[in-house]
Amino acid sequence: MAEHLGSRGLESWSDEVGNLFGHVPGAHGRRLLVGSHTDTVPAGGRLDGAYGVMAAMEVLTTLHEHGHPAARFLEIVSFWDEEGAQPMSSGGMVGSTALCGSPYLAAIDSYLELHIEQGPRMEQAGYELSVVNGIVGVDRHLIRVVGEPNHAGTTPFPLRRDAGRALVRTAAVFQDLLRSVRDTVVGNIGALSLEPGAPNVVPGAAQMVLEIRAPHEWSLSRCADLVIDCATGFAREEGCTVEHRMLSHKPVVDFDEGMRALLEKVTVDAGRPAGSLYSYAGHDAGVMSAHVPTAMLFVPSSRGVSHSPRESTPEPLLVQGAQVLLEAVVAHVESRFEGDAAGSMA
Amino acid sequence: MAEHLGSRGLESWSDEVGNLFGHVPGAHGRRLLVGSHTDTVPAGGRLDGAYGVMAAMEVLTTLHEHGHPAARFLEIVSFWDEEGAQPMSSGGMVGSTALCGSPYLAAIDSYLELHIEQGPRMEQAGYELSVVNGIVGVDRHLIRVVGEPNHAGTTPFPLRRDAGRALVRTAAVFQDLLRSVRDTVVGNIGALSLEPGAPNVVPGAAQMVLEIRAPHEWSLSRCADLVIDCATGFAREEGCTVEHRMLSHKPVVDFDEGMRALLEKVTVDAGRPAGSLYSYAGHDAGVMSAHVPTAMLFVPSSRGVSHSPRESTPEPLLVQGAQVLLEAVVAHVESRFEGDAAGSMA
Repeated sequence: MAEHLGSRGLESWSDEVGNLFGHVPGAHGRRLLVGSHTDTVPAGGRLDGAYGVMAAMEVLTTLHEHGHPAARFLEIVSFWDEEGAQPMSSGGMVGSTALCGSPYLAAIDSYLELHIEQGPRMEQAGYELSVVNGIVGVDRHLIRVVGEPNHAGTTPFPLRRDAGRALVRTAAVFQDLLRSVRDTVVGNIGALSLEPGAPNVVPGAAQMVLEIRAPHEWSLSRCADLVIDCATGFAREEGCTVEHRMLSHKPVVDFDEGMRALLEKVTVDAGRPAGSLYSYAGHDAGVMSAHVPTAMLFVPSSRGVSHSPRESTPEPLLVQGAQVLLEAVVAHVESRFEGDAAGSMA
Repeated sequence: MAEHLGSRGLESWSDEVGNLFGHVPGAHGRRLLVGSHTDTVPAGGRLDGAYGVMAAMEVLTTLHEHGHPAARFLEIVSFWDEEGAQPMSSGGMVGSTALCGSPYLAAIDSYLELHIEQGPRMEQAGYELSVVNGIVGVDRHLIRVVGEPNHAGTTPFPLRRDAGRALVRTAAVFQDLLRSVRDTVVGNIGALSLEPGAPNVVPGAAQMVLEIRAPHEWSLSRCADLVIDCATGFAREEGCTVEHRMLSHKPVVDFDEGMRALLEKVTVDAGRPAGSLYSYAGHDAGVMSAHVPTAMLFVPSSRGVSHSPRESTPEPLLVQGAQVLLEAVVAHVESRFEGDAAGSMA
């Protein structure tokens, strides 16, 4: 990136954690930050999130080469370790989190990120572009059922306190419980274990980790309540008890209303089928949004595939996404830095 | 045991694996073997199976001290490592399995074992004694569901191939499927795992180990078929496939009909409430029964507790059990060794 920017007469620099930045020579004052990340997961694809960084570079270069006054209100970024897949990673969003705790944040007026959807919803709906409303909240819960271990041969069914059976009965209806709350909720049971784990011992304890994602805080807690109530009922039927612990809570992120309205206008002006949706995956924009006005644009992912070498988006849609990002940057700079930009443009 | 027998004028010896035997001086020819095992599980109780060995010693001692002719047709045994709980154990029934592969087997005419039930059925039915029909067969099956791992946030429910969900839906109805076949079937799901096991990854594979115990071979295979059909149906609904492997098959053991009829007569003659049932736990008698006519007698276990320090049976029932064992030994020897015993008794 540094080489590419240098060859176009642009300046680049990096901070202590490894975030790479670029701007036009002589840029100063608060600027719109545009970018994404270039790291990816092992065996990942070429678009998540390099696409957003490439597009930001194109936008900056294009504006600079055409002498557009918006260029000097622009900073581009390739964030360090968004995925948390670096061997010594502290868990993802490392670069954006570091930036938000650094003095450099003072120079950031707002943040805009272009990314692939990483899901199938846009393709299914026929959208070529989407304004991202925000990022779903993510709650993780540990549900533990405690019964009594027993001889699996000599203990008849009615005399068992089978913690495994109470837990799997709950797990079997987990998805139905979530669907009953709202069709925007998703969830997963990715880990489940029985104790002591021997084929001939009735499980004396059993636990699972639930993940629930939803675009509203109330639906996150409603879902958790339903699952806990359900587990408690099945546990009672099986002579067991339930323990519950919330492992983590990532609150719902709602992006800046003004920036979203501006992006909606730009996508409508583009004359292409466009929608709006919540992101079900985390992004640096989620971190930035707690500090500065932030918004995101999505382009579709073919068949919804991401974190895979098969990750792809039709090239015309990638080009169109970058074009719309440029238009959004210009419109945002003109509205946000009205006086300054007008001065420059004069 | 050797010391106790010696003090009563009886002979004891041990074989290469650690089985301890005892008989009257000068005993020779084929004999009825009576006994059980004295090892127990860690934190086990005092009755499983020391009770059967103590009772066998009492029977031999009593017959010997009264000069009863049946004594010389009797060999008693304390089998080595029945539980498979020895640190270097090859998995239980070690002593009886070794005996059945040794030249000493030639001297064994038949086998009789007194044991506690280790379950609650006799206490619930009010039986003080039970003739054991046999030992249930035990099948273990591995059921593995294969789907596709996916991002738990961005993959909507209808597009998932969630192997975990297909598996837990099957596990949730496992007990109901078994109950539908016959009320003498029991089973257990003691081990279950999801892969890759991360909270934010839809399980791409999931597997569990089923154990099914039943007193008839047809019900073992019928239960397995039902579970596999059920898993296949749920897997199809979830876009997954099912793999099945039988891990082990321990066939149903039916004890010797003639010996069972004799034990039934003896327990009826005892005038106490007696029943007949299958054992849902394994015993040395199961091993012996493949080689010589074999039978077992049970006394109840209070509250069905076994493999626990709380294991107990009311003392009068323990004494009565030993008394009935003695009567059974005498009756069996008289019927089995008619000519010889008559000769001795003459």
